[in-house]
Amino acid sequence: MKVWLVALISVLGGATTLTIGLLLGHLAIQKDGGAERWLDATQDIDESVIQHFMGAVDSKRIEENLRELAKKPHMATTKGDLDLVNLMLDRWNNKETGLDEAKKVTYNVLLSFPQKDKPNSVAVVAPNGTQLFTSRVKELNYTKDQLDPDVVQPFAAFAPPGTPKGKLVYANYGTMDDYQRLNQTLGIDLNNTIAIVKYGGTGREDKGINGAKFGVIGVIVYTDPADINDGKVNDRNETYPHSWYLPPSGVERGSYKLNFGDQLTPYYPAKDYTFRLPESSIRGLSPIPAQPIGFEDARHLICGLGGDDVPNGWQGGLGCKYHMGPGFHNGSSFENSDVQVNVFNRQETKASDNVIGIIRGSVEPDRYVIYGNHRDSWVHGAIDPSSGTAVMLEVTRVLGKMVKDGKWRPRRSIIFGSWGAEEFGLIGSTEWTEEYYKKLIERTVGYINVDIAVFANATLRALGSPAVQSVVFDAARQVSTPGHRDLSVYDNWMKHSNRTSPLHGAIPNMGTLGAGSDYAPFFHYLGISSMDIAYTYDRSKTKARIYPAYHTAYDTFDYASRFIDPGFTSHQTVGRTAGNVLLRLADSALLPFNASDYTEAIDQLYRTAQKEFAAELNKQNISLGHLESAVKRLREAADGLNARISELNVRSESPLKVRMVNDQLMLLERAFLDPVAFPDKLYYRHVVYASKASAVQTFPGLADAYQRATGGGGGADAWAEVRKHVTIVTYALESAASTLEAVI
Amino acid sequence: MKVWLVALISVLGGATTLTIGLLLGHLAIQKDGGAERWLDATQDIDESVIQHFMGAVDSKRIEENLRELAKKPHMATTKGDLDLVNLMLDRWNNKETGLDEAKKVTYNVLLSFPQKDKPNSVAVVAPNGTQLFTSRVKELNYTKDQLDPDVVQPFAAFAPPGTPKGKLVYANYGTMDDYQRLNQTLGIDLNNTIAIVKYGGTGREDKGINGAKFGVIGVIVYTDPADINDGKVNDRNETYPHSWYLPPSGVERGSYKLNFGDQLTPYYPAKDYTFRLPESSIRGLSPIPAQPIGFEDARHLICGLGGDDVPNGWQGGLGCKYHMGPGFHNGSSFENSDVQVNVFNRQETKASDNVIGIIRGSVEPDRYVIYGNHRDSWVHGAIDPSSGTAVMLEVTRVLGKMVKDGKWRPRRSIIFGSWGAEEFGLIGSTEWTEEYYKKLIERTVGYINVDIAVFANATLRALGSPAVQSVVFDAARQVSTPGHRDLSVYDNWMKHSNRTSPLHGAIPNMGTLGAGSDYAPFFHYLGISSMDIAYTYDRSKTKARIYPAYHTAYDTFDYASRFIDPGFTSHQTVGRTAGNVLLRLADSALLPFNASDYTEAIDQLYRTAQKEFAAELNKQNISLGHLESAVKRLREAADGLNARISELNVRSESPLKVRMVNDQLMLLERAFLDPVAFPDKLYYRHVVYASKASAVQTFPGLADAYQRATGGGGGADAWAEVRKHVTIVTYALESAASTLEAVI
Repeated sequence: MKVWLVALISVLGGATTLTIGLLLGHLAIQKDGGAERWLDATQDIDESVIQHFMGAVDSKRIEENLRELAKKPHMATTKGDLDLVNLMLDRWNNKETGLDEAKKVTYNVLLSFPQKDKPNSVAVVAPNGTQLFTSRVKELNYTKDQLDPDVVQPFAAFAPPGTPKGKLVYANYGTMDDYQRLNQTLGIDLNNTIAIVKYGGTGREDKGINGAKFGVIGVIVYTDPADINDGKVNDRNETYPHSWYLPPSGVERGSYKLNFGDQLTPYYPAKDYTFRLPESSIRGLSPIPAQPIGFEDARHLICGLGGDDVPNGWQGGLGCKYHMGPGFHNGSSFENSDVQVNVFNRQETKASDNVIGIIRGSVEPDRYVIYGNHRDSWVHGAIDPSSGTAVMLEVTRVLGKMVKDGKWRPRRSIIFGSWGAEEFGLIGSTEWTEEYYKKLIERTVGYINVDIAVFANATLRALGSPAVQSVVFDAARQVSTPGHRDLSVYDNWMKHSNRTSPLHGAIPNMGTLGAGSDYAPFFHYLGISSMDIAYTYDRSKTKARIYPAYHTAYDTFDYASRFIDPGFTSHQTVGRTAGNVLLRLADSALLPFNASDYTEAIDQLYRTAQKEFAAELNKQNISLGHLESAVKRLREAADGLNARISELNVRSESPLKVRMVNDQLMLLERAFLDPVAFPDKLYYRHVVYASKASAVQTFPGLADAYQRATGGGGGADAWAEVRKHVTIVTYALESAASTLEAVI
Repeated sequence: MKVWLVALISVLGGATTLTIGLLLGHLAIQKDGGAERWLDATQDIDESVIQHFMGAVDSKRIEENLRELAKKPHMATTKGDLDLVNLMLDRWNNKETGLDEAKKVTYNVLLSFPQKDKPNSVAVVAPNGTQLFTSRVKELNYTKDQLDPDVVQPFAAFAPPGTPKGKLVYANYGTMDDYQRLNQTLGIDLNNTIAIVKYGGTGREDKGINGAKFGVIGVIVYTDPADINDGKVNDRNETYPHSWYLPPSGVERGSYKLNFGDQLTPYYPAKDYTFRLPESSIRGLSPIPAQPIGFEDARHLICGLGGDDVPNGWQGGLGCKYHMGPGFHNGSSFENSDVQVNVFNRQETKASDNVIGIIRGSVEPDRYVIYGNHRDSWVHGAIDPSSGTAVMLEVTRVLGKMVKDGKWRPRRSIIFGSWGAEEFGLIGSTEWTEEYYKKLIERTVGYINVDIAVFANATLRALGSPAVQSVVFDAARQVSTPGHRDLSVYDNWMKHSNRTSPLHGAIPNMGTLGAGSDYAPFFHYLGISSMDIAYTYDRSKTKARIYPAYHTAYDTFDYASRFIDPGFTSHQTVGRTAGNVLLRLADSALLPFNASDYTEAIDQLYRTAQKEFAAELNKQNISLGHLESAVKRLREAADGLNARISELNVRSESPLKVRMVNDQLMLLERAFLDPVAFPDKLYYRHVVYASKASAVQTFPGLADAYQRATGGGGGADAWAEVRKHVTIVTYALESAASTLEAVI
């Protein structure tokens, strides 16, 4: 009873700094002893919790996590992957440092595998049938474990089986432009040819899809040292294990598949109860066999090609002058020979696991913050994805211990996801968002993805919805740059990449979300404010398309610990930053989203549309005036919401009023979803950030419709599509404004 | 300060009946004097408010409302409609009895009108071109006002213009079966014929759509006295003004259009900024001219027909023996004559207003309860829709006064809608749900529709989602039956229509929601738990398809006040009941929805599927086992939620915990939405209650797919569709279970 009286007296005495909410909170908690009594409803973020968390994130433990995770290859659904499922479950169910709950969620999904006894290959076949050359898997020489060739064999997942043979042509990156140039400008007949193309420039599957349109019957894909190795090629002293550069034998694997998620069950989870489409209905796959090889093998092929010199810009780094073919040059040892692509991939429906871990929220258990990464890799996958998983395990260890010690419980629920089969096209995460679509879309505050945690150890890189910019900045200001105690991650980021914001002046440059990792279904399909956080390159030091061992057998613990992040301090920094964001999303009474950052981004997209399209649109009597009005209304709505927020005292105000504002902030992103906007694009429902073909940085539906209308001669139907997409965007912005305006 | 001490002492003294929540509520309210301080968050329903409301609903005022509303014809967008827009605004902006706010929301929508100077008609034309008979508008003789023929002319809205001429055939109701029977069983060549058909049995537009498939070139539609008048035909003593029965001259108008909402802007609001589809893309309209006539004119045509006797069941109530034609019988004055349908309808995009009225919620302003009715009619529309509007105006007067007097403010926000252009196909309500889709779907607790408030004065009739059954029952138990003070509306309803519920035993029979009024977009498109409330027939006394003056010029105040509800006590009863439901939805701290009522309904639909389809499905290797499991999981989830609710003390529990449960109850209905389930049906997204062609009372997609598979010979594709729809339903039920289960 004493606490009651003390509290009462302090009010009676006019201690106005003690808010009523605070007072009553004390009363009720003391009286009932329950930690979840309703007066907790004002529970707000505790900066000391964040400091404790950041202090506890341990680089050594991340290193040990990674050593363990990358011990074996762990391609989706193979033994190595199943071992890691158990590892995740063990960690998250640990009595001292585990979460409240962890469980497996399994889907039966269509995957693609090479065959152990019939390895894929690329061969040069003489007119008499003699094989003059065959590509071989030499990556294994550099790895110490006994590797199962079924598990580590390079292949183009989902490329169809077949053994096409024909004259070889060099087709640069295999874009439509590239093939068109070869065929139309340079007059090369591509019918029945085998194209050798470089990674980059287009989706992997596009290299075959595009080529097939010109008669190409098989595709060989390799990683050109000019694109990945800053030109380095020599494995005696230049490439791994002497540096981070890719050895000549390294082969980049990948999924050759456009749509994400299980292809037989679009929009529905791949459960036992789910109807499967016939495989023949799948779209977005290469119609012709494709096979990746290392640049050592590619050199044999490309440097032997005859025909004219390649156009400007097509030359690569193999150390010879590139020619286009078709076929090998006179005098070459391959003269008159064909090239054969031997692909024996088979598709199989297999059980793939997600591992889900949960920390229950105290005040708003029905609001979720989700943090995830995929678990599967192509081979050992030390960097991709285990650098992210190693960080996630450290984040969950620290938070789990705080919960188990009774020191902390988040205001909102936190869900951790270890996704399966991402490498096959974001399958585990997509199926999970399908299965729990309704409750995730209704309840999720934000999604944090940390896949490749460290590409390189120079600076933070964040991709995300404009909604999360402010919270990422808040976190980045609180974390130190490795080796520079007084330089914040934020300030270091500014040095590497910045821009001028109309609202904030000079700020770090946050990128936008494509579909490169598991954030895609959360963001594009469910409209959940998402982000992807990593450490990345100093671009003054390398032009590599991505870290060189990407998707090869060289992506090992040894590689990571010697060349990517010695000491694991960049991993630690990513863990601190992502964990800081996570805690802010989970614990802040008022969600740390700034709607005005979204309106700034949209205003920019609008200005670009205006600048790039308005002249031609005027000729077609299509006005952007209503779109401009919608942008203005949205900006005013965001300003209005911010004004209301600034007047809101979260300690004394009704928790339902705070929730009301939070729901507006949470649901802003959802307002941009339109399930009928893009009937031809599976899962893409986000009208502001959907995928697009056009290079113009504006609203994707509008940009693509404009490109079709102007590129295709501009029939009435094509301009009608432009008109429609102006409406679609205008409507989405009006809806977003309506979401942010006073609720009634 | 005294109140503080009194309250404190009562707690210190151990007065345990005073909950902490109650105490703190008093404290805070007294201290700050603000009615919206956060401790109001436990505000619950006050039964005395409901009693006050019900006592204040005045039959006399409803009568005066109706007299005013039905003074002039008020077809959508005509002068009479615009006058009522102003009337609504005046009432809702009234200083003493108005709402917090009222405003007009306008859409530019495609409507259809007859032409003043070229009236539509049906004529009998002799071979020499002489017009032997022409239908005339004789309804006007019975109405006293000077009526504008442009406004009251009978027509089939959206039927195309044209003046087809041909031999007349009688085609019963114009269903596919009817035409098929005429053509295939009875061997009548329907090419180039004019079909005369009865209202009923099918959608209005179907009569032309079906006929055209058999070569019919024009359709005449009439209301047969056997279907509407219990056989009464004589206007000397049997029909209005002598009774409620339809006079021979009465013509039933209507919209001949399948899809609801503006047809040029599906899924987007028909605003200035909105792209319009070309009119040629519209689907679901009669491709041939159609015109309605009265049964007096129909008698001239039908009783003159030659040919064979009609099949059993086709005979109507015109007092002659029906023949099928084609053409008139020998010796008839019309012998050898053709019939010509003259339709001069024109389509025009016009501005149609909704009037929106608002009472702001105090505790949860971001939760909406919506109550609406359309405002437009075909002519005077005393019953349809002004009986509902008269009731709504009385409900808003009483509630508005309570608010203006400072006696009451709802916990949640209440929105009243006076929808425009409903008669043209639910246009005003659909456009509004499109414009505010995001916030309505996120925030709306329920929708109450009262269109025709009183069909007849015998008993309550409610259609609704199973979610609302319990709250409708709660209200019906508190209202007295007119003239029977001790007989509740609930008990009277039981007498007229009841069923045995596995959960509750004998209960009144609530119907399901089709697409007959403005609840359709709320329910089918947005998945908002909706209901339609009215007073209706004693079915032992009439078999009329609907009240006989429906959609004719006889639907007047005189008709309503003398034959439908003398004294307006049934109107009053509907107002009390619907208002009671409204208050319960708006004020109950815990939403009065029972998830178990939904699971009961779904279980019944599942059992029907099992009973009707399982044998054949087994042969096709299609199992309903997973669907059964989903039904079970849903039932258990509902039981679990009910158990958690029963342990919840809304006065002492965190308002966020109460909100959590309420959101689960609110969002249950949303879990049944699937935007990709019915790609060919505009707006229908509710997997449990979408429209269907099959007569089997089970899940609509499954029922229709099964019907197509078994009816069409059962190709592999057709059975694949069945499989797909089993998945779609299973997935929806799993999602619903997931919504109801513990949130984390």
